[in-house]
Amino acid sequence: MSEEAQLTDTEDLQERLAEVQTLLARHKLVEELVLRQEEPRHDLVDDIAHQQHLCELRRKLEPMHPADIAYILEALPLDERLIAWDLVKAERDGEILLEVSDAVRESLIEAMAPNELVAAAETLDADELADLAPDLPQEVIDDVFRGMTVEEREQLRAAMSYPEDAVGSIMDFDMVTVREDVTLEVVLRYLRRFDELPDHTDQLFVVDRNEYLKGVLPLNVLLVNDVEVEVGALMQADFVKLEPDDLAEEAAKAFERYDLVSAPVVDSEGKLVGRVTVNEVVDYIREEAEHEQLAQAGLREEEDIFASVWDSVKNRWAWLAINLVTAFVASRVIGAFEGSIEKLVALAALMPIVAGIGGNSGNQTITMIVRAIAMGQVQTDAMRRLLRKELGVASINGLLWGSLLGVAAWWLYHSVALGLVLTAAMTLNLLLAASAGVGIPLLRQKFGADPAIGSSVMITALTDSGGFFIFLGLATLFLI
Amino acid sequence: MSEEAQLTDTEDLQERLAEVQTLLARHKLVEELVLRQEEPRHDLVDDIAHQQHLCELRRKLEPMHPADIAYILEALPLDERLIAWDLVKAERDGEILLEVSDAVRESLIEAMAPNELVAAAETLDADELADLAPDLPQEVIDDVFRGMTVEEREQLRAAMSYPEDAVGSIMDFDMVTVREDVTLEVVLRYLRRFDELPDHTDQLFVVDRNEYLKGVLPLNVLLVNDVEVEVGALMQADFVKLEPDDLAEEAAKAFERYDLVSAPVVDSEGKLVGRVTVNEVVDYIREEAEHEQLAQAGLREEEDIFASVWDSVKNRWAWLAINLVTAFVASRVIGAFEGSIEKLVALAALMPIVAGIGGNSGNQTITMIVRAIAMGQVQTDAMRRLLRKELGVASINGLLWGSLLGVAAWWLYHSVALGLVLTAAMTLNLLLAASAGVGIPLLRQKFGADPAIGSSVMITALTDSGGFFIFLGLATLFLI
Repeated sequence: MSEEAQLTDTEDLQERLAEVQTLLARHKLVEELVLRQEEPRHDLVDDIAHQQHLCELRRKLEPMHPADIAYILEALPLDERLIAWDLVKAERDGEILLEVSDAVRESLIEAMAPNELVAAAETLDADELADLAPDLPQEVIDDVFRGMTVEEREQLRAAMSYPEDAVGSIMDFDMVTVREDVTLEVVLRYLRRFDELPDHTDQLFVVDRNEYLKGVLPLNVLLVNDVEVEVGALMQADFVKLEPDDLAEEAAKAFERYDLVSAPVVDSEGKLVGRVTVNEVVDYIREEAEHEQLAQAGLREEEDIFASVWDSVKNRWAWLAINLVTAFVASRVIGAFEGSIEKLVALAALMPIVAGIGGNSGNQTITMIVRAIAMGQVQTDAMRRLLRKELGVASINGLLWGSLLGVAAWWLYHSVALGLVLTAAMTLNLLLAASAGVGIPLLRQKFGADPAIGSSVMITALTDSGGFFIFLGLATLFLI
Repeated sequence: MSEEAQLTDTEDLQERLAEVQTLLARHKLVEELVLRQEEPRHDLVDDIAHQQHLCELRRKLEPMHPADIAYILEALPLDERLIAWDLVKAERDGEILLEVSDAVRESLIEAMAPNELVAAAETLDADELADLAPDLPQEVIDDVFRGMTVEEREQLRAAMSYPEDAVGSIMDFDMVTVREDVTLEVVLRYLRRFDELPDHTDQLFVVDRNEYLKGVLPLNVLLVNDVEVEVGALMQADFVKLEPDDLAEEAAKAFERYDLVSAPVVDSEGKLVGRVTVNEVVDYIREEAEHEQLAQAGLREEEDIFASVWDSVKNRWAWLAINLVTAFVASRVIGAFEGSIEKLVALAALMPIVAGIGGNSGNQTITMIVRAIAMGQVQTDAMRRLLRKELGVASINGLLWGSLLGVAAWWLYHSVALGLVLTAAMTLNLLLAASAGVGIPLLRQKFGADPAIGSSVMITALTDSGGFFIFLGLATLFLI
């Protein structure tokens, strides 16, 4: 990371964004004026003004941290984004590409020539390159690959071979290793030979001559102890060890639980192969949270907010299609009771209440259960207990809110029987929602599916169709 | 943190949880047997078996990390939880209370005597105590307060005075400070006088004699440079500085952007008052993400999954009440068109589709806009552009899916006019959803409200009632 870059807080950053936008707007204005001149004489004055704005813009962008430039690029519409991107110094392209969101990265890469991409990629470490590689054209990757050392190639191959949710995909190869039979004095002298230590070096890894990891030596221990002592006497032998195939989520939990800054990654034989640092974990946690939030609203991935209409449609259509199907099924359930509705039209007005409250209540249950499963806290023998509790909650809510609405229906439609049917239907639908809210995620887990994905759609579909069926069914039995 | 504690991965942790549960089950079995014996002679053999299980359980819990014990306590039903809690060594109570979730913490504190609580609280630092304080009885806090030094009292008062979302509430007071006119040699000697450095010490804070923060000296810089050099020549003067009143969310973003491990906190005059470390930031990010997830499903806070039915009802009722009101309003909208439905009962079956798809689509839009606002990327002049895009997406989706359903309606009910009305209603409701999806969060932001909270309820309410109104209204105009 460029240590000399300016660091800013978010407010400053928004001010800078505004400055950049003003300059871009001025630049575009001048450009339009130039274009509008009928005769093709390029007015010198205009041209200078034109250049001036770009120069000023470059001066603004130059001292900024790559992460801040990424932020500004994301906030600009495509045409302005590309103008700004052109002004950024080429040697920082790689770092900035790492920082922007996937959607924006695509738009930037599309605008770059292959040789620019190769130049950008060559500034990156193997683990960073692996993050970028899926978005790069094959020819660029081949070119970069040819320029690498054998060790780097191996690292890149390794980093690219792990799925996105594995520890291997968030690890880097910047480790400082020491032997256990040397004194701290020697270690300190060894470290002083570095120009700088890798970011997030909070501990040194103690390995034997075959690279087997024997322990870790925290810098804090190194700094407070007598320099005559040997590493072996101070190193910690009980520490968190990750393997490349472990789930990144598990690594994140370990970092959270034990407040880690870095953790070594070893292969199945115990050889040190890399390390994971807390900044990668923070990014992972944030991305996962965002991914879940987006998935809950049925967005496939994060959208560039300035994406084309067509890209947005594609990002959203799958969810709408699924919902259309479930809504259609619910509609056919109602269709089966059209005779009853014709005779008692109040049913049409009341039925969405039964379905809606069932959906809300079911989503509450399922959110809680999915979370408990994700934390590994639901053992199978707890299931019965949970179900009993949720059924209890549903009964209380059903009788409470159901009665309230029953009274409202009685008052509106002057029918005690209608009110009673509404109360009963709400209670039954809430019980259905509770059973499904406990059952769906547990069943999905049992069959190896991620309990979170699509649970909300499933339960809403069930409580909609189920709610209509229960209410209209009861009404047909008792009222028609 | 107890460095000597065992560290485990999640799988191990679940195994341990299972072992603990087995032991607790055996213990309870024996206890029941003892109770069932009619004469009150305490059978020695039973008693020994009884004690044995508890002993074994204690041996299992003893070497575990406080965070792991917290995990196990959270996964146990209340009665078993309290048995296990009793077995944990008293001096670790404080640390474990810090690690468990709020709901579980309450259940543990309720089971403790005031003197136990005082003892637990006394093992904690001021910033940790501040986290715990809201859950402690006033008498306990008073007692602890009396036992503190003046400096600690001031720290505790300071830490407790900040709202939960401020930097002040996540900062600690464990800083190592140095002067700029000393050499690295002196610094290294100074550090060697510590028993251990505070957790997450990745940099030393360079202050003058009045505690004004002049710069930071990363340990990495300390370790690679010549010991004869003075701190002033190496310290970094451009670094992230937080203030106690800054939003914790802003601090989290700075940590993410700049990959920080710690950051100094200064008061308005530039005096060093504390620091924030990445572990607190990770916890904050995770908690925020969870909070949002829960809020989206209308859960006020995280539930102890073994909470009583009544506690769960209280946690969920507000959301259900709000939804009941919006569902009731939607129901009255339908009620206004009962005459039309009586004449054309197909309307009753088709209307939930219009409302449902509008709600889904609106939630997609609002989720994206809320995220963009949270990242500070929506400038006011971008609003028109966003609205235009969302209206474009809505038109395409409306015409596409609307036509599909229009054809289905035509086929089901043999009425071209009904199909056309359905298509038109879906398109209009999607346009309404898009406008509201962009407008609601932007308006809420303008009036200083958090754009995220309740946005989903508002848009669903609008697209439900709006969808019914548009569809039934168009039908009444053109079909009846």
